[in-house]
Amino acid sequence: MSILVIGSIALDTVKTPFGKASNILGGSAVYFSTSAINFTSVNLVAVAGEDFPKKHIRFLKSKGIDLKGLTIEKGKTFHWEGEYDWDFSNPKTLTTDLNVFAKFAPKIPQNYKDSKYVFLANIDPEIQSKVLDQVKKPKLVACDTMNYWIEHKPKILLKLLKRINIFIINEAESKELTSETNLLKAGKKILKLGPQIVVIKKGEHGVLLFTKNHIFSTPAYLLESVFDPTGAGDTFAGGFMGYLASSKKIDQKTLRKAVVYGSIMATFAVEDFSLRRLGTISKSDIKKRLSEFKKLTSF
Amino acid sequence: MSILVIGSIALDTVKTPFGKASNILGGSAVYFSTSAINFTSVNLVAVAGEDFPKKHIRFLKSKGIDLKGLTIEKGKTFHWEGEYDWDFSNPKTLTTDLNVFAKFAPKIPQNYKDSKYVFLANIDPEIQSKVLDQVKKPKLVACDTMNYWIEHKPKILLKLLKRINIFIINEAESKELTSETNLLKAGKKILKLGPQIVVIKKGEHGVLLFTKNHIFSTPAYLLESVFDPTGAGDTFAGGFMGYLASSKKIDQKTLRKAVVYGSIMATFAVEDFSLRRLGTISKSDIKKRLSEFKKLTSF
Repeated sequence: MSILVIGSIALDTVKTPFGKASNILGGSAVYFSTSAINFTSVNLVAVAGEDFPKKHIRFLKSKGIDLKGLTIEKGKTFHWEGEYDWDFSNPKTLTTDLNVFAKFAPKIPQNYKDSKYVFLANIDPEIQSKVLDQVKKPKLVACDTMNYWIEHKPKILLKLLKRINIFIINEAESKELTSETNLLKAGKKILKLGPQIVVIKKGEHGVLLFTKNHIFSTPAYLLESVFDPTGAGDTFAGGFMGYLASSKKIDQKTLRKAVVYGSIMATFAVEDFSLRRLGTISKSDIKKRLSEFKKLTSF
Repeated sequence: MSILVIGSIALDTVKTPFGKASNILGGSAVYFSTSAINFTSVNLVAVAGEDFPKKHIRFLKSKGIDLKGLTIEKGKTFHWEGEYDWDFSNPKTLTTDLNVFAKFAPKIPQNYKDSKYVFLANIDPEIQSKVLDQVKKPKLVACDTMNYWIEHKPKILLKLLKRINIFIINEAESKELTSETNLLKAGKKILKLGPQIVVIKKGEHGVLLFTKNHIFSTPAYLLESVFDPTGAGDTFAGGFMGYLASSKKIDQKTLRKAVVYGSIMATFAVEDFSLRRLGTISKSDIKKRLSEFKKLTSF
């Protein structure tokens, strides 16, 4: 079953303790799609500027991602510049140039409107809501957000939460949204806000999954060197949603396996700048890492 | 098989966001023993002062802990006073009165000298070494330490590491000892310093276990309310060593299960001040929590 994803396309400039890369391919929709395409077909809705290099479009097409929903607008592509220090947990944002992304008003192509699986990457919850209005009868809608929207558009966000099935956020956001310091309490509280499934990403400390009757906790796959964590969260979401869409079922067992696949996909994203590693993996790389993950965590 | 533990007995004054308790029973040897006694017999070597309440001795005896190695010296019992804020990760130490603990020179009772399982709780590595000199042919020696000894007695600590089998430390200590920010690298580096087994405790984020050919990562059991984290690390060590001593084997499967038992025991310690919860649990409480832990983590 194909997934509809709405999010950003970016040209990022990223500095880490290991080096710097300028104007590299990034953006939530790009990381999500490149991850999810390993499991199912993906329809991408996003906007780029006239400066967006043709080679990136060729790359996305070569992965099999459907780009009918990609529009090229006058102006420059969204640009983010950030810097990570050794702890890699929170980048320092140096520049955010919204450019063509400032006026992003996604129009869902006609033949995407029947999408059953939808991922609303982190953008203004107002836009996320308008996208949702255009989808006819989705089976499973997941959304992400960030602290900025929790602080600036809480009402719209809370209204959106009642319309979605899966809310995927990170630890700090879950605490901010619920005013809870305890993640178990935070997760349970978010379930009451609407979504039937809550996923809290803890970065190098793993992931928590909450449903009405179950909680699942898993550590992260261990990497000796994290090179660039940009996009890890969206890559997780891509693996998670990709696996769900490919399995069709949404029972506890499937959800847990989806979390593990999401975690594994994220490890590929952080092993190099941009999509350099994630964009070149094969099914057998994923299979191998899944088997290593099982060895790492079973008792 | 019984375990010999050498460590502190303390009267703690602890302040948390939930309340304050003064002069309550604490100390590494106490938490360790009260945890390990659920799995095997325990011989405790420690020192207390004349002010040490008889009721605490009665309590330890009632748990079945062998106190032939407990000496009561002239003066006051070791006293620690600390305060936790909401994140519970690092207490602020307000007072440390070593008292009788300042001259602690443990003499191992004759009939403890054949001990096969030994736990050297966090004390001066010089004392830990002298204790080890007195044990004839131990099968499995585990030790703990803290940042203070890594900074002030690194040579003696490194020499000790070559004589022990299991090193149990926390995340920050492992990073400080190895000058590594990455835990995978830190764990592997510590293995090269001597111990065949390295356990890195990550608090609410779980535990990592390193051996030559395997790495095991497990999340922590989730609690809605952590009441007082004092003693969690020693309680972990007690469950870990207790399970190992009771199983006799030291293969990978047993080690992993020992980590899980250690993690579970620690959750009881943090649910109330002092030994109020840990000291009153039954075998069925442990069994129940183990089954919940499996449900929480399996996929």
